[in-house]
Amino acid sequence: MADVAIVGTGHSKFGARTDVNLQELAWETVRQALEEANLEQQDIDMFVVGNAGGWSSEPLSAIVIGEYCNLAPKGTMRVEAACATGSAALRIAYQAIKSGEAKIAMVIGAEQMHQSPHPLAIEMMRRAGNYFWEFENFGLTFPGYYALYATRYMAKYGMKEEDLGQIAVKNHYYGSFNPYATFQKPIKIEEYLKSKIIASPLKVYDACPITDGAAAVILASEEVAKRITDTPVWIVSQGFASGTANLSKRDDFVSIDAARVAAEEAYKRAKINREESWKYIDVAEVHDCFTIAEIMAYEDLGFANRGEGYILAREGQTYIGGRIPVNADGGLKAKGHPIGATGVSMAVSLTRQLQQRAPKGTQATINNGYALAHNMGGTGHYAYVTIYSLKKPSA
Amino acid sequence: MADVAIVGTGHSKFGARTDVNLQELAWETVRQALEEANLEQQDIDMFVVGNAGGWSSEPLSAIVIGEYCNLAPKGTMRVEAACATGSAALRIAYQAIKSGEAKIAMVIGAEQMHQSPHPLAIEMMRRAGNYFWEFENFGLTFPGYYALYATRYMAKYGMKEEDLGQIAVKNHYYGSFNPYATFQKPIKIEEYLKSKIIASPLKVYDACPITDGAAAVILASEEVAKRITDTPVWIVSQGFASGTANLSKRDDFVSIDAARVAAEEAYKRAKINREESWKYIDVAEVHDCFTIAEIMAYEDLGFANRGEGYILAREGQTYIGGRIPVNADGGLKAKGHPIGATGVSMAVSLTRQLQQRAPKGTQATINNGYALAHNMGGTGHYAYVTIYSLKKPSA
Repeated sequence: MADVAIVGTGHSKFGARTDVNLQELAWETVRQALEEANLEQQDIDMFVVGNAGGWSSEPLSAIVIGEYCNLAPKGTMRVEAACATGSAALRIAYQAIKSGEAKIAMVIGAEQMHQSPHPLAIEMMRRAGNYFWEFENFGLTFPGYYALYATRYMAKYGMKEEDLGQIAVKNHYYGSFNPYATFQKPIKIEEYLKSKIIASPLKVYDACPITDGAAAVILASEEVAKRITDTPVWIVSQGFASGTANLSKRDDFVSIDAARVAAEEAYKRAKINREESWKYIDVAEVHDCFTIAEIMAYEDLGFANRGEGYILAREGQTYIGGRIPVNADGGLKAKGHPIGATGVSMAVSLTRQLQQRAPKGTQATINNGYALAHNMGGTGHYAYVTIYSLKKPSA
Repeated sequence: MADVAIVGTGHSKFGARTDVNLQELAWETVRQALEEANLEQQDIDMFVVGNAGGWSSEPLSAIVIGEYCNLAPKGTMRVEAACATGSAALRIAYQAIKSGEAKIAMVIGAEQMHQSPHPLAIEMMRRAGNYFWEFENFGLTFPGYYALYATRYMAKYGMKEEDLGQIAVKNHYYGSFNPYATFQKPIKIEEYLKSKIIASPLKVYDACPITDGAAAVILASEEVAKRITDTPVWIVSQGFASGTANLSKRDDFVSIDAARVAAEEAYKRAKINREESWKYIDVAEVHDCFTIAEIMAYEDLGFANRGEGYILAREGQTYIGGRIPVNADGGLKAKGHPIGATGVSMAVSLTRQLQQRAPKGTQATINNGYALAHNMGGTGHYAYVTIYSLKKPSA
């Protein structure tokens, strides 16, 4: 099987991008990725578009983007895996190269949530839980789901709201250095504590924003990658899993099953021991749609023991220089979370980290050359865990 | 790279399936496919759901289906490529096996268009052209698009409405033998000619119906396939391509660019000469969303010369016993067209054809052991052409 490397990356400014339409937003990143890889559209064998969609009346986003970016008549498809959509798109291109069906593949993640009026956008997010039982019958909303997790976690392990606040403070701190981030302003723990409650115990500063944004990566086979770059970033493995749509069927509320299953598969394929993963991984991106989600991710990924994830936050162990730097680009919390783009944005940030060209103030120390992305969909419906490395996987 | 075979198939009754919800509909086919392959859910490494979606308020169809069919926590994603969605789902599973990422993968195509009220369902179909310019500004609808193709084709090549009628008569004839078909009643050319015009020159009997339905196939690597079945049906190749969303940018209106590009790629990979393809292929499924689409497909696939596709119809050359049997399961026209299921349904029909277990009255003569599926999305936005064989591709 062919080894697969990232050879080009592109990233748009995230935020309220009402200055562009979806295809223009995508083009900002496609262009950047092509330039980085020194390739032209005709060199691309296929492209995959990660776009959860539903925000506008134009339904065929892959076609509209492909045409605008001059990628047609190359083969394409649109993929959706809720908030893990970008990682699902990456997977398809990864398999395409690994199987020999393509030599060079483009992954585009793009979402323009502001195409819907704000209340509709929030309503659409709500539906991505279990629509029929939980939203329609009980009125459960997305912050509500994660508030349930946070409440249970606090009761079981003694986490304080200040611990959640440390995640917000860290991610806003790193967002302040990232020119692509929605929020580029650090916040103080006092501001966090005073911020408005949206679903107790979660506050506005616990939640990621409704965001427009795009990101792109170009994947290539080993043979092509070596022609293009001296520093290919290899995809070592990807694990993925699904979970029940129904919160009432979950085993517990302090962890996400699908994330554990996906991480296990990714680690196994990468031959990394889960319990020691933080010793190998130089930098990680995790799905902090709410601060509690980042804490649970620490544990689901093996960065901390069960019930001790909040201690990493309390001790600042996930800043650069700590046990393992997490979300050094600001994470979903400060960078923003344009659904289909997020998984691809993680790939862009980690590629630039491993190549030591992250924005000033956000570069982690690269020792072992491994990086990890953890991208969730729904409230644990989808999980994708991807491991990247400077070392060729089959070497 | 691993060879990939179909080792199990499932197909639901197509039609107005208001007796079930989407996940129950999917389960009818998942269960049948598992039984055929003598597998259980835990044997499946991953599953892909083809579902264009948007008909109901429950947005995460892959999760809802996966949970109901007891496929969770296996990894999954939902894919959309307009009316070629089923073939895109097949592609992802094909690449997963070929790349070694999975040994056994389930492909589920499912759509329940009747979950929307009828006028809304038709409005949603309309949007799958070029929403902004063509639907919103000019009111162009889906039958309208294909009426433009038919008008131009008639003017250029002298095709008569009776020739289009022959496609409808043939596909209804075969639908009458297919227990899964929406319409199981043959029609006479006189009935066709008297049927109501919906977009001149197209009549009701030129159009496929709004349909509910599901289909599933299980793909496996060679090693696994040989344990499961003595008659694996191999995926030899798949070509795919995209086209402009904007009809005004097409080169001509008597053919579909993307279909030609996809066919070329599929034939090249299968080492089949396009001009002689009908000599190798024992039976084909083509995307007859409207009768004119089947005529254009004959030419785009090389079954007929340019401008002579309608002569195949006139002469009855695409019945069993003719040059090449096409849509012996009734096609989209009579079997129905539940968007996400259609490409998977084609795979099911062709697998059963090659294994000589098609319903009575529809079994083609299997000589060379090749079959071909042509699945389009939009009005030429997406094209997927897949070639199947009883012979192992790498042999």
